[in-house]
Amino acid sequence: MKINKGLALTLLVGLGISAVASDSLINEAKKAGLKPIPKDKAALNKLIDNPKNKLTPEKIELGKKLYFDPRLSKSALISCNTCHNLAIGGDDNVPVATGHKWRHNPHHLNSPTVYNAVFNQRQFWDGRSPDLEDQATGPIQAPPEMDMHKEMAVKVVKSIPEYVEEFKKAYPNEKITIETIGKAIGAFERTLVTPSRYDDFLNGDEKALSKEEKEGLKTFIQVGCAGCHNGVGLGGSMQPFPVAKPYKYANVGDFKGDKNGMVKTPTLRNIAETAPYFHNGEVWSLEEAIKIMGETQLGKELSDKEVKSIATFLNSLTGKKPKIEYPILPNSTKDTPKPNLD
Amino acid sequence: MKINKGLALTLLVGLGISAVASDSLINEAKKAGLKPIPKDKAALNKLIDNPKNKLTPEKIELGKKLYFDPRLSKSALISCNTCHNLAIGGDDNVPVATGHKWRHNPHHLNSPTVYNAVFNQRQFWDGRSPDLEDQATGPIQAPPEMDMHKEMAVKVVKSIPEYVEEFKKAYPNEKITIETIGKAIGAFERTLVTPSRYDDFLNGDEKALSKEEKEGLKTFIQVGCAGCHNGVGLGGSMQPFPVAKPYKYANVGDFKGDKNGMVKTPTLRNIAETAPYFHNGEVWSLEEAIKIMGETQLGKELSDKEVKSIATFLNSLTGKKPKIEYPILPNSTKDTPKPNLD
Repeated sequence: MKINKGLALTLLVGLGISAVASDSLINEAKKAGLKPIPKDKAALNKLIDNPKNKLTPEKIELGKKLYFDPRLSKSALISCNTCHNLAIGGDDNVPVATGHKWRHNPHHLNSPTVYNAVFNQRQFWDGRSPDLEDQATGPIQAPPEMDMHKEMAVKVVKSIPEYVEEFKKAYPNEKITIETIGKAIGAFERTLVTPSRYDDFLNGDEKALSKEEKEGLKTFIQVGCAGCHNGVGLGGSMQPFPVAKPYKYANVGDFKGDKNGMVKTPTLRNIAETAPYFHNGEVWSLEEAIKIMGETQLGKELSDKEVKSIATFLNSLTGKKPKIEYPILPNSTKDTPKPNLD
Repeated sequence: MKINKGLALTLLVGLGISAVASDSLINEAKKAGLKPIPKDKAALNKLIDNPKNKLTPEKIELGKKLYFDPRLSKSALISCNTCHNLAIGGDDNVPVATGHKWRHNPHHLNSPTVYNAVFNQRQFWDGRSPDLEDQATGPIQAPPEMDMHKEMAVKVVKSIPEYVEEFKKAYPNEKITIETIGKAIGAFERTLVTPSRYDDFLNGDEKALSKEEKEGLKTFIQVGCAGCHNGVGLGGSMQPFPVAKPYKYANVGDFKGDKNGMVKTPTLRNIAETAPYFHNGEVWSLEEAIKIMGETQLGKELSDKEVKSIATFLNSLTGKKPKIEYPILPNSTKDTPKPNLD
């Protein structure tokens, strides 16, 4: 009996051969340290929670308001959302973070995305912050970002009775300080996870990724990308950079990583939406970024085919964003410090 | 029979005397040119519509995205919502509009609220624009605001397939130009109306305003505020300014109104949320603003009691904001012009 190609494929699929192939890729991915965002709500909640800042609806709602509130900046024009804009991938899509008085980050650093930042082991490019709650207090005070004196930020919040009330409900046993402001913002940020088809795939839905995307995932693992880009975040750990060859645009800015030359690996989730790439935002093309990473970190000249295949996979990491109702913020009072544009 | 005061009041209320009083105030208000936001949805839709840009869900949704899209600015950091922030009263709460490269408005003009701007007869402080659709094209291009060349704005939109698709659905017979971009944004802005208890009152619910608020409304009418602050917007028409006495802070900026010295009367809706006041944003206190208006426009030294009473009424104009889901914007492509921070 002569069997044509189409029929053979149908038979193979019928026999579960394709399923086995996907299944082994899922195992391969898991062996390489890749982990999905859990489908199960309770498991996800456990994963994103912080024992020192247990998530509650009150904290999340308050944190959302503060995240969008420009009055936490000296000018009253810049909020967390200015540089970590939830409408455009959770970052600002410009090479260098730009803040108060149009100042640029002095090390020419690029704003990383806030989406899935909860999965990072450390925060900031040099990993100097242990978690989102701590991180959130930094840009509020940094002169090239929101440039707000921490006591001023507290004064703003305390001058608005609705905020005082919400803090009482969210943190009944804590005073309003820059740290509790950071905790509320961190609580909100913990909810900003974006499950994608890739997660469906790792969670067992073998049809969630296309053939090309699966091939890309395979290439991604085989050439070694998952060596650093692993875990739930496909990134987020501190890693040496550069490893095999100097980074092509190292001359832009003076960032050298932490004191050991370690740099926080960026998450690859929503990477298609978060150009420009690298700590100094010098690369706009995802393909070029992949090529550079091959050279710089893996010491490999990736072929165009490999680059394209990996890019195809990375595009499947664009996830579903949580629905966010734009907040109506409580009104300032006569006691609210006036903005300072200078 | 001796009737005590409390019982007398109860009887009078029972006889509908209080209702008559409110009713006559409603009539007085209407005679003074004050009009509510219609309760009836069809009547409201008719009121906010533009025959040259008939509202459709497609236009409104597209316009919402563009309103929040910072890529319509040269830097890709500033959107319509930056200066007309829907979270904080529809404006920026700083004295002087601040945009690209932290430039201030050259005439030291304050950003007016976008909420209820649909009720303005003219747009901009000097009334040079006839409607929201036309107005929206201005700040996109103005160097101290979004500083975007109009062809660049069109290029951004055309480089994003989802936008092209949405324009096709919203404006099937029109090319994508700065004018159609303005039309879509204008369509969204037309929906930004905020009915308040004041509207409930004018629509016949006599208990919607407190006794003090009604007294304030009465004072507002009697001293002459409604001479300019009338219509649905309690403002929005071109009026001479100043009339009786020079404006106290006229030396800040060089704004003198249109060629006839006419200035667009700001809406008083949500006035409690839109400090600082006046075209140059020099006054932070609502009470002071009322006092100055009495002197400057009415030639009257208002008593503290009158000022307080009017302020009490004005606070009742804080309205219910429409619920807005923060948009997830379509992704840039390799053809999208790169941001320019310089």
